[in-house]
Amino acid sequence: MCRWLAYAGEAIQPSKLILETRHSLVAQALDSPLGFETVNGDGFGFGWYPKDAAPDAPPATFHSIEPAWHDENLREIAGAVESPLFFAHVRAAAGPPIQQTNCHPFRHGRWLFMHNGGLAHFARMRRDLMLEIDPELFPLVRGTTDSEVLFHLAITHGLEQDPVRGLGRAVRRVEEVGAELGIPDPVQGTFAVSDGRTLWAFRYSTAHRSRTLFHSVDVATLREMYPDLERLNRLGAKGRVVVSEPLSDLPGAFIEVPESTVTILDGDDFRMEPFLAG
Amino acid sequence: MCRWLAYAGEAIQPSKLILETRHSLVAQALDSPLGFETVNGDGFGFGWYPKDAAPDAPPATFHSIEPAWHDENLREIAGAVESPLFFAHVRAAAGPPIQQTNCHPFRHGRWLFMHNGGLAHFARMRRDLMLEIDPELFPLVRGTTDSEVLFHLAITHGLEQDPVRGLGRAVRRVEEVGAELGIPDPVQGTFAVSDGRTLWAFRYSTAHRSRTLFHSVDVATLREMYPDLERLNRLGAKGRVVVSEPLSDLPGAFIEVPESTVTILDGDDFRMEPFLAG
Amino acid sequence: MCRWLAYAGEAIQPSKLILETRHSLVAQALDSPLGFETVNGDGFGFGWYPKDAAPDAPPATFHSIEPAWHDENLREIAGAVESPLFFAHVRAAAGPPIQQTNCHPFRHGRWLFMHNGGLAHFARMRRDLMLEIDPELFPLVRGTTDSEVLFHLAITHGLEQDPVRGLGRAVRRVEEVGAELGIPDPVQGTFAVSDGRTLWAFRYSTAHRSRTLFHSVDVATLREMYPDLERLNRLGAKGRVVVSEPLSDLPGAFIEVPESTVTILDGDDFRMEPFLAG
Amino acid sequence: MCRWLAYAGEAIQPSKLILETRHSLVAQALDSPLGFETVNGDGFGFGWYPKDAAPDAPPATFHSIEPAWHDENLREIAGAVESPLFFAHVRAAAGPPIQQTNCHPFRHGRWLFMHNGGLAHFARMRRDLMLEIDPELFPLVRGTTDSEVLFHLAITHGLEQDPVRGLGRAVRRVEEVGAELGIPDPVQGTFAVSDGRTLWAFRYSTAHRSRTLFHSVDVATLREMYPDLERLNRLGAKGRVVVSEPLSDLPGAFIEVPESTVTILDGDDFRMEPFLAG
Repeated sequence: MCRWLAYAGEAIQPSKLILETRHSLVAQALDSPLGFETVNGDGFGFGWYPKDAAPDAPPATFHSIEPAWHDENLREIAGAVESPLFFAHVRAAAGPPIQQTNCHPFRHGRWLFMHNGGLAHFARMRRDLMLEIDPELFPLVRGTTDSEVLFHLAITHGLEQDPVRGLGRAVRRVEEVGAELGIPDPVQGTFAVSDGRTLWAFRYSTAHRSRTLFHSVDVATLREMYPDLERLNRLGAKGRVVVSEPLSDLPGAFIEVPESTVTILDGDDFRMEPFLAG
Repeated sequence: MCRWLAYAGEAIQPSKLILETRHSLVAQALDSPLGFETVNGDGFGFGWYPKDAAPDAPPATFHSIEPAWHDENLREIAGAVESPLFFAHVRAAAGPPIQQTNCHPFRHGRWLFMHNGGLAHFARMRRDLMLEIDPELFPLVRGTTDSEVLFHLAITHGLEQDPVRGLGRAVRRVEEVGAELGIPDPVQGTFAVSDGRTLWAFRYSTAHRSRTLFHSVDVATLREMYPDLERLNRLGAKGRVVVSEPLSDLPGAFIEVPESTVTILDGDDFRMEPFLAG
Repeated sequence: MCRWLAYAGEAIQPSKLILETRHSLVAQALDSPLGFETVNGDGFGFGWYPKDAAPDAPPATFHSIEPAWHDENLREIAGAVESPLFFAHVRAAAGPPIQQTNCHPFRHGRWLFMHNGGLAHFARMRRDLMLEIDPELFPLVRGTTDSEVLFHLAITHGLEQDPVRGLGRAVRRVEEVGAELGIPDPVQGTFAVSDGRTLWAFRYSTAHRSRTLFHSVDVATLREMYPDLERLNRLGAKGRVVVSEPLSDLPGAFIEVPESTVTILDGDDFRMEPFLAG
Repeated sequence: MCRWLAYAGEAIQPSKLILETRHSLVAQALDSPLGFETVNGDGFGFGWYPKDAAPDAPPATFHSIEPAWHDENLREIAGAVESPLFFAHVRAAAGPPIQQTNCHPFRHGRWLFMHNGGLAHFARMRRDLMLEIDPELFPLVRGTTDSEVLFHLAITHGLEQDPVRGLGRAVRRVEEVGAELGIPDPVQGTFAVSDGRTLWAFRYSTAHRSRTLFHSVDVATLREMYPDLERLNRLGAKGRVVVSEPLSDLPGAFIEVPESTVTILDGDDFRMEPFLAG
């Protein structure tokens, strides 16, 4: 019920992707043709690993409850920093509360997490899922979203050691709790996870009808396809974007991530693997 | 670039009209089919003359920079007060700043004012128009909108003595300043004005292609047309609404206000008159 | 770590007490001589039972994350409504998050609750206390404060049937959980509870060194003491205020509530009883 | 009626000075012993020239209407960027509106400006002063503060060519307008101005009883005085701070700027000159 964008590659000004493209994330906040909801105006968030930061420094985040489209602080910050790996998210809430603690991305140590979609009938599952969270992590859950609970459940299940397995187990537990409570198709979403070095982007839903997710083709291919397109030079040779819907209407520039798949960007390496609950 | 609603009649809970109808003003904030812009998420305002207030008491206002659709305070207040005359407005800003001082309705003494539309190339006209404002009123202009300047210009030209004439002269001055600066079609909009007793609603633009404006038919007629419609009983016998677009799709319930017209609701009296600049 | 005020009596404009007295609650937000913290600028809340509302109608609330002292909406609303029973609260947070869901008063059905003070080492107790909350109520906890958890624990223990007993049991459970975790003196605070008819105000702490709490003397007595003081006429004959610190420096106008005591205002009846955990 | 801090020197994380010192600017927001007002909770602002930015790139700004002391975004941003020249400001407003357009520092092209103090009876002078502003600049004034008007008046009088002369003339014009209107002592304040290369900090008032202003001694001197103080190593050899009140109670670390004086930091060069209106 949101839109998000994750970038990994050469350090760039995040504004280039989240503000200055034709169907930029901020443009999608106001009008998202492929979204479950058209308007994503219930706050936004931006998380980035600063260029030149110490190797194990945590990422920085900026969260706001105002719509992204006219927010002046977002423009300032996204234009003033440079980052080799960043997340941005615009939120369409099912309802109140609209508060910064409900804005993605969420952070834990070096890790960032964000989500588009939802856990079905979350109010009914919330207590059972929160009890599954490691008691040490329990007081760190500060908002009311399903996404934040899922993130802490994944950390409980080892996300920091193996993100694919940690998130898979967390998703499985949600599906089991949902089954116990008679909730059909409890998990729906696309998820992004990073530790600042590698970016994992998941597309998954219990019903196998997941929210859309796209990755950009590599920049070298794009330049071959569009030798005259000057703005491609803004992007470094290694840069890749994973995003809820394409940032441009250049044919061939964005490719849909298949169902039940995790996309992994790790320096020069880019690959996809099946992703299953459990 | 906004949507608004004005009500006069028996004292009712404003929530009945701004929240609980099918195409309520708050629903229009998220999706306004007849609007110049689809989304009106750049803050909102609500102004009301409290039931049982002293005869010359000023109206109260509530302004917020957050979108109306998930705002909990708006729900609380619009449901907890009763008012025989109230204004509500959802804003679609052309750009920043998003701030409470830019939220309608504006107030001066007993008077409320709100506006949908705009003054063309306002940045070029702003200084000249502000110089026309009575120097005593000048420091009361607190925001950056064209609407607030136009309101204070209308007060300068006698709105408190004769709203139709005061606004007419203000509009004429804007057209003259626009002409001097070579700005075509400087005025566009629908305007609502009240002193707590009478409600004036204007539809006007220099180009005679104004933003839409509708008024409800009288409740007695509506009940005759729809004898089985229970929710009509929420409304008192005298209540009338003027609104940027119909609150319901009941055929015949809302009638378009003609171009260059002012609609006047004054107790039992309801009439329309031509409205001209000057 | 906050300041609060509760009023019961004839319906009045809340602004008279929360804004217009010498040491009004809003003045205390900026400078609270008896407070644990001097500044209470981390949001505020206001809850009121509207005059003329249906007998079982829930109260309305207004919450804001901005400091109360320059908030224009608070002035508008507190001056435009009339209420025979209202709560107001200014917050001094130990830390983030500053969000509306952390602003008092909290509401459940017809009930309002607010708190000054805190549960010691709440992060360590939070999980255990939340598990004690009725699973049906669990998803209704939306913020991160100890106060909101305590309120829902008290509801779980029967606050709606017997507020003194319900809160007493909840306090006892916190003390027991605190003891298990080796946390000394876990409960500290003053609490206000109402169902719209009766107002209960508690002063209690495990260590018997509670935050200050005062009640006003009855207005008849006050008028006898100060026959020339015109502003006393603002208050009805039955009105009483319970407040973290006196609203005025009139000698004799405010009397300290003793330790481990609950003050009960119920129409014309005003009494104090011992209050004990359990 | 505010507190501010300006730094120039080696690029550092701004959080080191605005958050992590004993009497940091953010600590002063909550309790400012030398301030005209004790609490500076009416929003804040932060402006910085990013390290590694293009030579003529404008500075970035971040403005918020919330108190600085618990603001999470400020912590994130001030810790995630590095800057060789930055401004930070916490505001104590005389009254509403509290809005981002009233938060310092103000920006024009490459220039930043901030102010502590005020223009006396500004409401009476506002119109006359705004008429003095270059008509091209007039629409750029977006808030209601005296400071923003003074900044644009100084630009009108050549601040970009010669800041000392431009501000001097603007101050003189305010004094002349004040004299015409019978306003005694119209100008009061300390001002900071920069183009990203040089920092000018002014202490001036018509009555020659100006708000306090201090500059730090050079770091080499400080290290000689306190050879054992490890935290001094956080600061580069060239770094200097100008600030409304000392950031630490190290005797000798901060020196008061004299009345009617401008302090100029320009790379290695640090000097003071008399500053006079006109």
